Amino acid sequence: MPRKLSPVRIAEIVFRTIKKQKHKSFCVLSREERLLDKLFDYLAKAGIAGDLGDDAAMIGRMAVSVDSYSEGIHFNSLVPDDSIGYRAVTGAVSDIAAMGSEAKYVLISMGLPRRVSDRKFFGLYGGIKKACRKWHLSVEGGDIVASRSLYISVCAIGPAGKNIRRSTAGSGDILFITSYPGLAAAGLELLKEGADKKNILVKKFLYPDIFSDDGEKLFPFVSALMDSSDGLIESCQSISRASSVAVNIDSALLPLKKELLVFCGSRKKTLKMALEGGEDYYLIGTSPASKFAKIKTPVFRIGTVTSGRGVFLDGNETGYKGFRHFK
Amino acid sequence: MPRKLSPVRIAEIVFRTIKKQKHKSFCVLSREERLLDKLFDYLAKAGIAGDLGDDAAMIGRMAVSVDSYSEGIHFNSLVPDDSIGYRAVTGAVSDIAAMGSEAKYVLISMGLPRRVSDRKFFGLYGGIKKACRKWHLSVEGGDIVASRSLYISVCAIGPAGKNIRRSTAGSGDILFITSYPGLAAAGLELLKEGADKKNILVKKFLYPDIFSDDGEKLFPFVSALMDSSDGLIESCQSISRASSVAVNIDSALLPLKKELLVFCGSRKKTLKMALEGGEDYYLIGTSPASKFAKIKTPVFRIGTVTSGRGVFLDGNETGYKGFRHFK
Repeated sequence: MPRKLSPVRIAEIVFRTIKKQKHKSFCVLSREERLLDKLFDYLAKAGIAGDLGDDAAMIGRMAVSVDSYSEGIHFNSLVPDDSIGYRAVTGAVSDIAAMGSEAKYVLISMGLPRRVSDRKFFGLYGGIKKACRKWHLSVEGGDIVASRSLYISVCAIGPAGKNIRRSTAGSGDILFITSYPGLAAAGLELLKEGADKKNILVKKFLYPDIFSDDGEKLFPFVSALMDSSDGLIESCQSISRASSVAVNIDSALLPLKKELLVFCGSRKKTLKMALEGGEDYYLIGTSPASKFAKIKTPVFRIGTVTSGRGVFLDGNETGYKGFRHFK
Repeated sequence: MPRKLSPVRIAEIVFRTIKKQKHKSFCVLSREERLLDKLFDYLAKAGIAGDLGDDAAMIGRMAVSVDSYSEGIHFNSLVPDDSIGYRAVTGAVSDIAAMGSEAKYVLISMGLPRRVSDRKFFGLYGGIKKACRKWHLSVEGGDIVASRSLYISVCAIGPAGKNIRRSTAGSGDILFITSYPGLAAAGLELLKEGADKKNILVKKFLYPDIFSDDGEKLFPFVSALMDSSDGLIESCQSISRASSVAVNIDSALLPLKKELLVFCGSRKKTLKMALEGGEDYYLIGTSPASKFAKIKTPVFRIGTVTSGRGVFLDGNETGYKGFRHFK
């Protein structure tokens, strides 16, 4: 059993959570909404900005997304090689799922320091294999280059599905998530504390879920969707901004895993982890009330969408913030 | 004017040429044909290998390729930021061109060390912009992550064209190239020697050409095609291997720029640079004799394809080798 620990302070930890402030189809670390805003202006003025609209780009009849993982930033020596590969692929696949599409293909870019052994290389590919089997993907290409530090950049591609945006939530919609929040962030903390890799929370960090069911059971009934890798609050903020709505979370509805309560030691700390914890790839969505009941796969209703702006927890504007490792 | 220098020994230089031993749709540094062969076996056994067939992957009706550039490997502080961005985009675009397709879209993955300033970031994007305008591309997405060392990974996508492979050269075909070989490699040497960035060879390194004409003037008349980023000899070796043919280069036919002759100081050294120099992105192709005359854009006939295997220069098996920076 995990030891009872003080609340996680990921913002103080050197090995931070994966922080991707996702803006449109650029997924960007939170250093720089400012930088990103400037970039979008720059691309628009240069006349080379595409439809930078969401988690993934829609090109022809394909949804395309890239997601990168850097040594020392998104993983370190605590993370087994196969988890690095698994998480890299799963992150890109979750971007495609967040568009209401299903990834079918990946291209794998890998930057390898000279010191990297064949064993490590195939360890990384062991995780890529595991994720490809889990998410029914084929590896269609990629590149391998020398690099000073290790990185993996995954390009995931799938036939365009419903093309669900994060900008299409409507007042009156129901807010839902597809899995238990906060588990991966807790698992990362436990991993750092030396917990066994078989611990259920650690496993949720090492091999995160997205949404394992047939998309047809979910996507037709959804108005807006995105993945949760920013953490629940930040993802809700993105939906709020993009859709110009207020997103209201009811804490009593949040599904909290018993293991997370045990790990955090109090309900307050558990809530904080569930609301702020990154590293997960489950989906956060909204659904018109008339369609919500038609969803054919288990989801958790956790709140509502109303007119206005901002993210509210039990009626109060949230003081919770996402984590930022790029300051 | 460039000084008269001793012959380039890129194999001995710390900042090496971009070495991509392209195998199928993986473009890989030459560390590891062995590693790559093992990887392909691994993916095949795992049942997750797609059609790893060439410079780019053909997915649906799209040609897709990724190409990565790492700090300290593919560029260093000698290379202006806008050239780094330009070369990264152009490399990915040339992979698409080498399939007989035209890239229309790019997604840009960037790993940024914390020290990177906004000025440098927009310097890199200045080159990305320049390449996007040159090659008529729009930026459709990407990601920006923190990283210990700087890298850019470009995913280029275009509607599938003729789908020309490197495996479809036939005995009796004519061998051609679309531009003067060796210029970029010489330009890199000059840059290291402190030459002015306006030097014509330096410019060929900083802002390389691919094939600037309408693809319809070339692609319909071509049997096999690939880009030249490995250098002319290595690219011919790839065509020879993939197509099971002998590739014969006639040195008297090689178009040698006057500036290259001046830089190298002798015809022998110039030939070596033209045959081995990497960093270029022009195209190398083969064309059935009956179709060659129908090509509507200037190309240089440099040899023939015959039955057999290997690459021959003036009838002799070449002792020239490509450069490898990943040993």
